[in-house]
Formats: sequence, structure tokens, C-alpha cells
Amino acid sequence: MILTENQRNALLRPLLGSGWTLAQDRDALTRSYVFEDFVAAFGFMVRVALAAEKMNHHPEWTNVYRTVHVTLTTHDAGGLTLKDAELARRMDALA
Amino acid sequence: MILTENQRNALLRPLLGSGWTLAQDRDALTRSYVFEDFVAAFGFMVRVALAAEKMNHHPEWTNVYRTVHVTLTTHDAGGLTLKDAELARRMDALA
Repeated sequence: MILTENQRNALLRPLLGSGWTLAQDRDALTRSYVFEDFVAAFGFMVRVALAAEKMNHHPEWTNVYRTVHVTLTTHDAGGLTLKDAELARRMDALA
Repeated sequence: MILTENQRNALLRPLLGSGWTLAQDRDALTRSYVFEDFVAAFGFMVRVALAAEKMNHHPEWTNVYRTVHVTLTTHDAGGLTLKDAELARRMDALA
């Protein structure tokens, strides 16, 4: 279920204050992470992949050498849900 | 060093015949792979990551659930080199 206004205020505000931004073209969160090198960037992706598979909720993400650009949204719901806020928090903790 | 015309004929032709295409906007190879699910797609990425790190040549790639879209080029050389042709072949073998 799409986040309500109250949920957006409570859950998205801290994320938007810590590096996440709202996508321009759809109801989604985006963030870029920059690591020391490819091994560090891909190591992060492996940790996130395990968490994402466990949540059954997966990021859209692009890796170019030491950068990882992430977009989170819930396709089935057509926008941001609790799962996106939770995955964003977990990704920050794993970065 | 950028591939010569002779090298392009010899090395790129088989790749272009097996699913790779030349990018429109720069001298690069692109290909999309579709797997059964996220675990299969990310498992492929892990195998490629190990090979890429060993080659010291890394793909630009995007993963959305069970799809992986890849772009190969050599930034230092400003276009396609032997390393791109080699990584393309290895990715096909690992897919």
C-alpha cells in the first residue's frame, strides 16, 4: 500500500535528510553511494542483495566501478511503500 | 588501445551476432540478460564481478530484479579495447 502523508512525514523525512532524494519522474527514492573501489562497491551490493532477497523487495541499481546508484519503489503498488523506507534504512546501515 | 578495424571485424562480429549491440552514443558494447529471478541474476553478477576484478576491467551495469543490462567500454582509452571484447566473451560464458 502506498505511503500515506503521515507515513511520508514520519519515514521519508529522515531519509531525505540523510542523502536520499525523491525521483523527479515517479514516486521513488534515489541515492548514490561512492566507495573506495570496485571491491568495496560490489561488497556493499552483495550485502544488500542478501537483505533484499530476504525482504522479497529488490532495488533498481546501477554500478559503475566504485559508485552505486539506487532507485527504490514498489512496482506492484505503483509508488513508495513501507518496504522502500525499510530497504533504504537497511542500505544506509550496510554502506 | 582502441580496437583497429581489423580487430573489430575479427572480435566484435561474433559478439554482435550473439546478442551484443553497439551503443548509439559512444564506442561501447551493450547487452541485456534476463534470468529466472533475482537470485539467478545477482548470482551471475557475482561471478562476473570476480572475473572483472581479476581482469581489472569492470562493466557498467544495471540490475532490475531478474534483468541485468551491461555496457562495456574502456574509459581510459575512450572506446572499445581488447579488454571489452574479452569481458563480453567471459560474461556470455558465465550467463
